[in-house]
Amino acid sequence: MKKISLLGATGSIGVQTLDIIREHPAEFKLVSLSAGRNLELVRKAVAEFQPEYVSVQERGDSDKLKAEFPGLKIGYGPTGLEEAAVYSNADILVNAVLGSVGLSPTLKAIEAGKTIAIANKETLVTAGHLVMEAAKKHGVPILPVDSEHSAIYQALQGERAKNIEQLILTASGGSFRDRTREELVGVTVSEALNHPNWSMGAKITIDSATMMNKGLEVIEAHWLFSMPYDQISVLLHKESIIHSMIEFHDSSIIAQLGTPDMRVPIQYALTYPDRLPLPSGKRLNLAEIGKLHFSQMDFDRFRCLKFAFDAGRAGGTMPTVLNAANEAAVAAFLEGRITFLQIEDLIEKMLDSHENILNPDLETIKAIDEKTRQDVSILIP
Amino acid sequence: MKKISLLGATGSIGVQTLDIIREHPAEFKLVSLSAGRNLELVRKAVAEFQPEYVSVQERGDSDKLKAEFPGLKIGYGPTGLEEAAVYSNADILVNAVLGSVGLSPTLKAIEAGKTIAIANKETLVTAGHLVMEAAKKHGVPILPVDSEHSAIYQALQGERAKNIEQLILTASGGSFRDRTREELVGVTVSEALNHPNWSMGAKITIDSATMMNKGLEVIEAHWLFSMPYDQISVLLHKESIIHSMIEFHDSSIIAQLGTPDMRVPIQYALTYPDRLPLPSGKRLNLAEIGKLHFSQMDFDRFRCLKFAFDAGRAGGTMPTVLNAANEAAVAAFLEGRITFLQIEDLIEKMLDSHENILNPDLETIKAIDEKTRQDVSILIP
Repeated sequence: MKKISLLGATGSIGVQTLDIIREHPAEFKLVSLSAGRNLELVRKAVAEFQPEYVSVQERGDSDKLKAEFPGLKIGYGPTGLEEAAVYSNADILVNAVLGSVGLSPTLKAIEAGKTIAIANKETLVTAGHLVMEAAKKHGVPILPVDSEHSAIYQALQGERAKNIEQLILTASGGSFRDRTREELVGVTVSEALNHPNWSMGAKITIDSATMMNKGLEVIEAHWLFSMPYDQISVLLHKESIIHSMIEFHDSSIIAQLGTPDMRVPIQYALTYPDRLPLPSGKRLNLAEIGKLHFSQMDFDRFRCLKFAFDAGRAGGTMPTVLNAANEAAVAAFLEGRITFLQIEDLIEKMLDSHENILNPDLETIKAIDEKTRQDVSILIP
Repeated sequence: MKKISLLGATGSIGVQTLDIIREHPAEFKLVSLSAGRNLELVRKAVAEFQPEYVSVQERGDSDKLKAEFPGLKIGYGPTGLEEAAVYSNADILVNAVLGSVGLSPTLKAIEAGKTIAIANKETLVTAGHLVMEAAKKHGVPILPVDSEHSAIYQALQGERAKNIEQLILTASGGSFRDRTREELVGVTVSEALNHPNWSMGAKITIDSATMMNKGLEVIEAHWLFSMPYDQISVLLHKESIIHSMIEFHDSSIIAQLGTPDMRVPIQYALTYPDRLPLPSGKRLNLAEIGKLHFSQMDFDRFRCLKFAFDAGRAGGTMPTVLNAANEAAVAAFLEGRITFLQIEDLIEKMLDSHENILNPDLETIKAIDEKTRQDVSILIP
């Protein structure tokens, strides 16, 4: 029986993690969770999974829950998030929060010796060196939950990292795959939220449309697999069936495939190195699909991907700026305050004006993250 | 340094095995080889690789070689083949002979504790139970060299066999993939030998055109991976890029991909569990290929595949009959003595008239193999 802490329990990955726990009651037990402001879902999760600790975003909400669930330990805000992450008897932390807010609780959980299943890519983008260093120091495995990184992790089993020629991340192209840059002028939020393959949260769906999602994944892959950026490539594959691949230096490629179902990588991280049946999973039928398509990535069309490669290669605080500017710009786009193409423009401005700081510590990263968000907000009308 | 015995050194797989040995002189040393009647290639291989033992098919040819290479140990015929297979200081036997003649030397090499790299699928088809039983008894690994089985073997690394839902063997469809059965009447030998993707020996190219090759591979997969026939499926994939796949019961699929280059699976068997660079290997460029196609296998169109599944499920001596009838019929087709569609008819007749013998021993298998070939020859005008 694995005991699980789940951060971000009411988001898309969180809800699907609860699905997995529900399907395998003999294998998994939820012991703590965190959520934002969706109290309705928190109440349902508490009633069903009987966790011992719950944290929410706002103090007012935590007071409400205290009145409703007298036996439950309850926290709120950043402290609550960290307490949920390090909850004493948990074996594994599933970090499914959104954004770089996931960094501190991840580091705390690593220090507490928890295995980390990470769906929160911003944490690795903004401070990958700190996370991987801490994981190494404390002997803690970092298991990817992103479908691409899970694919690579699965493909890597039984192989030796020294034999890798390159990692090939596949990219669906997102909602606007077939549009030219000219056709992106004036696109609406609801158009951008209409992803062709994956049903995901709003932020990641916008990141897919700008290709920043793949950019963040490139940086994430760099850290997770200690892979130089020159050995990470991105391939357009509109069906999202091959989730990613490893090419070895004998020219053999190992790939992981499946229908677009996030429960597969979530469950893999929870069962690793074993697997469990996923009875309700839709099986891939390639004969029915008929064709898989592949094409070269266009860095001019998808500028955010180039920003990410450049920021990753520069290292230091550049990826922090990339990520913070993107989080702030995407939030502004979702609020209708800027246009779709202004997301890129804002990120580019922030990167161009940033003086890089190499080997930043946690405080520096937090300060740069905060400053970048403020700078973006100043530029937004 | 791995010391290698190579049976079938002048065939397609044999020559490519020599390519691999040539590319990695610090890793591999050829110590013995067998060949058929291509003395020219034998002489070149002896001069270049300096093996200690050589066996050829005919006594006259062995006498010629003795005169030319006084320091070399030389044998001939079935005894020579076995001596080459068990040559004293070899670590690994690459069995790349054609047909069920590869069975006895394989069993001898297993008894001598050699690791077996098997490209000779007929051996596993005709007597898989004996081979796998002997391998288990002597603790000898059987490493597949067929591209499909190598793909599955690679995909299986780091995984647990209990989690397999099914093996998915891909099939290019061979030279006549797009023809109806009506359009197969009167096809010529040279048309049948024109495989769209792979450059291989004549027998396997004809087996690809009849789909018997995939049938033999199904039986081979059954033995290599202890997999029930209901958990082996065949998928048409005309580009031969995905070489085969494993579906696990969490619905995740691991696949091995690459350009059609037999040196990759050959080298993998020789370097397993490690890999080595294959500098002259052509790298897969999926963006350039653009599309991969998949479609359902049609058992009415490709009757030999159905024969193979049925013979495999029946077990006993049925697969021996299937294989011997096929070897004899394909030889007759290549000699221009029967038509393409008569290959199927002859196999079907042999299977229909055979009284199955369960758990056959080696003598029984050899007798049934011999009798089937005779019965086929009687039916050929």
